[in-house]
Amino acid sequence: MNTIYYPAENEWNSLLKRSALKTDAIQETVSSILKQIKDEGDKAVLKFEELFDKVQLSTLQVSSSEFEEAEKEVDEELKAAILLAHRNITTFHAAQKFETKKITTQPGVTCWQKAVGIEKVGLYIPGGTAPLFSTVLMLATPAQIAGCKEIILCTPPNREGKVHPAILYAAQVSGVSRIYKIGGVQAIGAMAYGTESVPKVYKIFGPGNQYVTVAKQQVSLHDVAIDMPAGPSEVAVLADGTANPVFVASDLLSQAEHGTDSQAILITTSEELLKQVEAEVVRQLEELPRKEIAQKALESSKLILVKDMQEAIRMTNEYAPEHLIIETENYMEVAGQIVNAGSVFLGSYSPESAGDYASGTNHTLPTNGYAKAYSGVSLDSFIRKITFQEITREGIRQIGPAIQTLAANEHLDAHKNAITVRLL
Amino acid sequence: MNTIYYPAENEWNSLLKRSALKTDAIQETVSSILKQIKDEGDKAVLKFEELFDKVQLSTLQVSSSEFEEAEKEVDEELKAAILLAHRNITTFHAAQKFETKKITTQPGVTCWQKAVGIEKVGLYIPGGTAPLFSTVLMLATPAQIAGCKEIILCTPPNREGKVHPAILYAAQVSGVSRIYKIGGVQAIGAMAYGTESVPKVYKIFGPGNQYVTVAKQQVSLHDVAIDMPAGPSEVAVLADGTANPVFVASDLLSQAEHGTDSQAILITTSEELLKQVEAEVVRQLEELPRKEIAQKALESSKLILVKDMQEAIRMTNEYAPEHLIIETENYMEVAGQIVNAGSVFLGSYSPESAGDYASGTNHTLPTNGYAKAYSGVSLDSFIRKITFQEITREGIRQIGPAIQTLAANEHLDAHKNAITVRLL
Repeated sequence: MNTIYYPAENEWNSLLKRSALKTDAIQETVSSILKQIKDEGDKAVLKFEELFDKVQLSTLQVSSSEFEEAEKEVDEELKAAILLAHRNITTFHAAQKFETKKITTQPGVTCWQKAVGIEKVGLYIPGGTAPLFSTVLMLATPAQIAGCKEIILCTPPNREGKVHPAILYAAQVSGVSRIYKIGGVQAIGAMAYGTESVPKVYKIFGPGNQYVTVAKQQVSLHDVAIDMPAGPSEVAVLADGTANPVFVASDLLSQAEHGTDSQAILITTSEELLKQVEAEVVRQLEELPRKEIAQKALESSKLILVKDMQEAIRMTNEYAPEHLIIETENYMEVAGQIVNAGSVFLGSYSPESAGDYASGTNHTLPTNGYAKAYSGVSLDSFIRKITFQEITREGIRQIGPAIQTLAANEHLDAHKNAITVRLL
Repeated sequence: MNTIYYPAENEWNSLLKRSALKTDAIQETVSSILKQIKDEGDKAVLKFEELFDKVQLSTLQVSSSEFEEAEKEVDEELKAAILLAHRNITTFHAAQKFETKKITTQPGVTCWQKAVGIEKVGLYIPGGTAPLFSTVLMLATPAQIAGCKEIILCTPPNREGKVHPAILYAAQVSGVSRIYKIGGVQAIGAMAYGTESVPKVYKIFGPGNQYVTVAKQQVSLHDVAIDMPAGPSEVAVLADGTANPVFVASDLLSQAEHGTDSQAILITTSEELLKQVEAEVVRQLEELPRKEIAQKALESSKLILVKDMQEAIRMTNEYAPEHLIIETENYMEVAGQIVNAGSVFLGSYSPESAGDYASGTNHTLPTNGYAKAYSGVSLDSFIRKITFQEITREGIRQIGPAIQTLAANEHLDAHKNAITVRLL
């Protein structure tokens, strides 16, 4: 890890810079695959599954007997943990339901918003060594609460053509309608355009490698909405001398083990804490199975000493971390001054792991400084708010003349006329 | 206008299809201009202002004396109308403020969301024959309510280097911090990257021609968030035999006058109404100053007769119009079944013009069927919801074991360890 003492404010920008995702080289590969999926549907999907996932599939959709089998295969301890996480995620997201309020802006002019679930959503869950059933819970649970009518999920099968049982179990618990054994760019294409087997959806959610990221970007330009732009995961820990260095080190390491491009940053007012954390990271790292990944990530990670808490807060807001852990004496006061972050964890007993899995908050969050403009996934991500207005004859008499003036000054006479005919 | 009687359901798709925006030819032009703005800042901005807006500017920012002059130039009637619109827009959007609720998902596990305004936003207001001061109100008013700290606005100057006084007046009324005389792609680039004069913003809002649309798309891939994808404006009127054909015709025409690519559609259960509207459109069209534009738009517009109200509602939801006017006997009942639309206008006295200008709802709405996945601009567009969690020692004992199980099953041992060290 790199230690930096008292960086000058004009150095912050370069100090906090993320490595840019280079995607120019793969744009064409991705668009060629997408085009084939659009033109040839299932036939192209099956071809790319054979090419990339090394599996010949006869049907793409997971069958009900595969769901039943999965339910038997997942052990009881994991099932109970999944159910607990699902319950807390449900509690937190159900509390986000939007309640319509009718607003009378002038007598006879009533306006309101109504929240409606996006009718068809598609979730992408990547394959790889670990089955990301937690992401299934984080995306499908709010989709179901929002009232999305079709919640489909694509995930690559293994070489035996199977999906990990914990993914199937989590999907069933959280209300996924159908699962398709499709990975990568072909999954994004199938959900964006629809195929014989896969319905076209209106919005696509979920993480993925750089190919999936680019595919989501490309389809989002014309065909479908996406959750948010993607980037490597990251954490900032904001701590003073009262923080527990063992806890802080464990939090930095849980970020570092995600991938070699993960970022973990400590911003602290205490030199002593900084030194203790540095030593503790080295100690804990030794015991990790994913030591090599974490070690590589730590090479670009930083321990930064700043002169006081105000500077620490300013730097944190400038960085706009995906995850922010605040381990300081008056953490509530500090939290009140945070304006740019995805999800914030307060005090000594709120590790990022809690929000990653089971406290109830969502773990799909804006990375790469996008927290300055984007929120993480929440119930809002699965709904639209439609506005309504009901104007009475009296109401249009009240606001009609002003509308006529405004329309005339924008040279839109038909707009003015739509009022005039109603005032006769 | 084209009249279509009882189209079969499998024909709806092609019947309701929008014309696709062709942007391939201008992608390179746009990216070349953006690159020059990024590399050369103000120098390039000034160059493109001379090239495209035919004006040599010495400074880009509108001065306070220009604001003072504008205030004198706008006549009192228009000022009063702008103030009325601003008041109603404020009332409706202020009522959308998000209130934090703390949720205890398990004993000792407390989670909440906090809404924070996006610190820096940029608004784009196109030039052209009409000064779009209404769009200034629609974008700046919620930005100010959201607590955005910097609200900047770019708009092209005329050949004398001036901005229309009504735009300056509306901007001042609604809390814009600074205005820059910059149009087109160079405006989008200046706000996305920042220049010596123009601060970099985090999110860009506002309409524009196809160059502006493509520029917003390009910068949204890496540098900045945008309000929503753009497309030509459109209205659907859903009406039965009780509707007033004069009103319906006036609404279709106010859409048609926007531009030759605007869409206006009538979906009705009454053949008599359809015929009356058809005749009335011809009659009203004759009196419009923008007759030629409207006539061209009407060539691709449609009057559709369907067999009953249920079919009318299904077709409307399939179309997902930006604006929907419901003029039927039981319009509240019909409104309850609308799931895809941007903004809905109910009854005989709620013309689209009301929402375009002054009733209080926003007029920046999803076109092109995007209403299936996107909401219109609202207070939400200018904030982020940051999640927070505070877990006590007791709380982590409650949920810690489940998190350990979940993390271990995803092979993320450092995540598990962040719990283990806190349970010791």
